[in-house]
Amino acid sequence: MPASRASVRKIAEPTVRRLSHYLRYLEAFERAGRGTVSSGELAHSGGTTSAQVRKDLSFFGSFGKRGLGYDTHELVAKLRQILGLDRAWRLVIVGAGKIGSALARHPGFRGRGFEVVGIFDADPNRVGHVLGGVAVWDVKVLESEIRHLRADIAVLAVPPEEAQTIATRLGRAGVHAILDFSTAPLEVPAGVTVRSVDLALELEVLSHALVSR
Amino acid sequence: MPASRASVRKIAEPTVRRLSHYLRYLEAFERAGRGTVSSGELAHSGGTTSAQVRKDLSFFGSFGKRGLGYDTHELVAKLRQILGLDRAWRLVIVGAGKIGSALARHPGFRGRGFEVVGIFDADPNRVGHVLGGVAVWDVKVLESEIRHLRADIAVLAVPPEEAQTIATRLGRAGVHAILDFSTAPLEVPAGVTVRSVDLALELEVLSHALVSR
Repeated sequence: MPASRASVRKIAEPTVRRLSHYLRYLEAFERAGRGTVSSGELAHSGGTTSAQVRKDLSFFGSFGKRGLGYDTHELVAKLRQILGLDRAWRLVIVGAGKIGSALARHPGFRGRGFEVVGIFDADPNRVGHVLGGVAVWDVKVLESEIRHLRADIAVLAVPPEEAQTIATRLGRAGVHAILDFSTAPLEVPAGVTVRSVDLALELEVLSHALVSR
Repeated sequence: MPASRASVRKIAEPTVRRLSHYLRYLEAFERAGRGTVSSGELAHSGGTTSAQVRKDLSFFGSFGKRGLGYDTHELVAKLRQILGLDRAWRLVIVGAGKIGSALARHPGFRGRGFEVVGIFDADPNRVGHVLGGVAVWDVKVLESEIRHLRADIAVLAVPPEEAQTIATRLGRAGVHAILDFSTAPLEVPAGVTVRSVDLALELEVLSHALVSR
């Protein structure tokens, strides 16, 4: 277990999301050969204010030099550590339907340090197939395979009526983070974090914006 | 244009998301034959407090009867109107790659009133194919086809480097709402609403949760 795991304080989710955005822009600045970046530049890229940027970054010690801005390399390294991106994470996908298979082949995950190491499905027609270079296993062996694969994060892409059962099994198998596409309300033990991606809900935010124009 | 379009006040996004959640639980209560629902029950389902539920719903007039709770049918109808779900929306998908094709076949959209009416791609090998019953058009004819199809919402599932160009063309073609999977920062004219779904960012929220456990 890397030393960084014990040393990161838990941050509120909206702040984590802003830090993720800052990191992307900082990496772009870094690729462009920029040694320092101002809070104003980060604020502009992230659609927020300089004051918000300075406040968000002040939580993690003093990086900025007044009048000089932030050291790009130092801040990139620190944000990667805070976000847990200074190590690789092992992902399993449960559900090899349309969404699950699209995610298995998603090139954006590996580039950020998330590697799909296993896929599970209940359908015998899918078991044994290979998606994005990874074999589909029978969901019956979920617990033992997850331990064997040393999976950190599970992507839940099963129908809503199966989601709770799988989530409970994932928790028992020692998975502490679930990215849930099922749209079902999940109850998980303390210590398991769930992030839900609900595409119909995102569309509802848009339809509200359209009717309130 | 239905009368409801002009009469809905713009609500802050976190509230809209909670209203979407309340609506789902209310619909479940309605299917279960429940005529009234208390703010406490809605709060429990949505993982929030009764006070928050009452505050969120008080924006839209008085539905609750003290001691009796909310009239399920009335509140469902009102929330559907506020969220713009009392009408059908016409969706186009730009980008028929892995994510775009998975979305084209996503059964959850039509059930919420979002109908995919057109798909566009630049790859001649994809143009002319049929995904989820809808033909893939050449992106060259994007503007004219979008007008012809009377599309309300566009789903942007193109590579990041093409996203801004397509977003600009969508805005010009009269699309006022974009669900963006490209992860590129987009500049759109005033009056166009963009919702971004960034799966790697969701994973980063989870990896932070894992390192800060």
